[in-house]
Amino acid sequence: MSAQHAFAALDLALPPAPKPAGVYKPCLVDGRHVYVSGHGPVLADGSLIAGRVGHDLDKDAGKAAARQVGLTILATLTTHFGSLDKIKRVVKVLGMVNATDTFSDHPFVINGCSELFAAVWGPDHGIGVRSAVGMASLPGNIAVEIEALFELA
Amino acid sequence: MSAQHAFAALDLALPPAPKPAGVYKPCLVDGRHVYVSGHGPVLADGSLIAGRVGHDLDKDAGKAAARQVGLTILATLTTHFGSLDKIKRVVKVLGMVNATDTFSDHPFVINGCSELFAAVWGPDHGIGVRSAVGMASLPGNIAVEIEALFELA
Amino acid sequence: MSAQHAFAALDLALPPAPKPAGVYKPCLVDGRHVYVSGHGPVLADGSLIAGRVGHDLDKDAGKAAARQVGLTILATLTTHFGSLDKIKRVVKVLGMVNATDTFSDHPFVINGCSELFAAVWGPDHGIGVRSAVGMASLPGNIAVEIEALFELA
Repeated sequence: MSAQHAFAALDLALPPAPKPAGVYKPCLVDGRHVYVSGHGPVLADGSLIAGRVGHDLDKDAGKAAARQVGLTILATLTTHFGSLDKIKRVVKVLGMVNATDTFSDHPFVINGCSELFAAVWGPDHGIGVRSAVGMASLPGNIAVEIEALFELA
Repeated sequence: MSAQHAFAALDLALPPAPKPAGVYKPCLVDGRHVYVSGHGPVLADGSLIAGRVGHDLDKDAGKAAARQVGLTILATLTTHFGSLDKIKRVVKVLGMVNATDTFSDHPFVINGCSELFAAVWGPDHGIGVRSAVGMASLPGNIAVEIEALFELA
Repeated sequence: MSAQHAFAALDLALPPAPKPAGVYKPCLVDGRHVYVSGHGPVLADGSLIAGRVGHDLDKDAGKAAARQVGLTILATLTTHFGSLDKIKRVVKVLGMVNATDTFSDHPFVINGCSELFAAVWGPDHGIGVRSAVGMASLPGNIAVEIEALFELA
């Protein structure tokens, strides 16, 4: 099954692809790769999921935010390439959680994004390397920011 | 206009290219790319802009620090390559702000670096992907640390 | 001397290669590179060195933790490739310290990993670019998390 069909089968809505919040491009093709800027959890109405995980949001709400970041990345890729089939596989994900200094479940949170990518590109091509870490603060107090690197088809 | 001429037209002084503060190289050429280590905001006298943004420094002072980090990266590239024309374009920037846990204007701060790169390499080649995030602490309490990836000409 | 012989001469034990703590691969080969996920400091018994550097651990204990992260990365590479000789050189290291907001010796800490890599691959190929920064929190309260990029031989 193609990535685009796999995504359609999930019956999930993409949020609007975000405009850059600063001087950067949402994604950039470099040879046979596409680099994706740090994305936040954009909702259908264009607003962002805010709050610190471990304080304002529990780990399940954090995971839901990371899944929404994943959807936002898919929105950027779809806007740029027209189809998720232009992406061959996930290479790398950097998952940054707006977390308290006692929070310890960052991998559980970032799985919200990683499980989505695995559902779209499959259990091999949909899973790359990853770091999942806790930040002191994030832009606009968003709950999660994720940047990624993909290989093109 | 070439990058080197564009930089000259800005009439800005480069700080001294920093010596590594640990076991790493300031930059490393890998195929048609150059990876650049995390750089701090080095001033003309070799000292660094220190302080936490949102506490010791306001967002404008943070942005000025990020611009100084950009100049420091240009100093490293100039020392290594002899000319900024050896760089074709910005691929990726990771902007790390020494920020309070309530700070939320990281993109505004990191624009200090990104606007400089855009002025040097132009509005397409000078702008890559980016993440802008808040760190718990940075080496020597510097205000901003930025690492980058460029494509060679 | 080959990397594998250089490592043997150090007379150090590798910890067990860690299983992923989430939906990711420990490492991923992409063309002539291998990306390595964020690794923690795994000990011989499979447990991890935990604590915040600058509070629970001093900078020397932090450096020892970073060295253990380096050994854990070597364990992952050895498990995947069979020999460290399959790696030509270090390209990039991102060293993330679980640090207090007043800690300032992140480069000293991350040198624990970088000095190990330099001993294995030598003073040129064993040293790449690097950022060393302080995180608000890390998974399971580990002391250090490091991700890396290597070029294959």
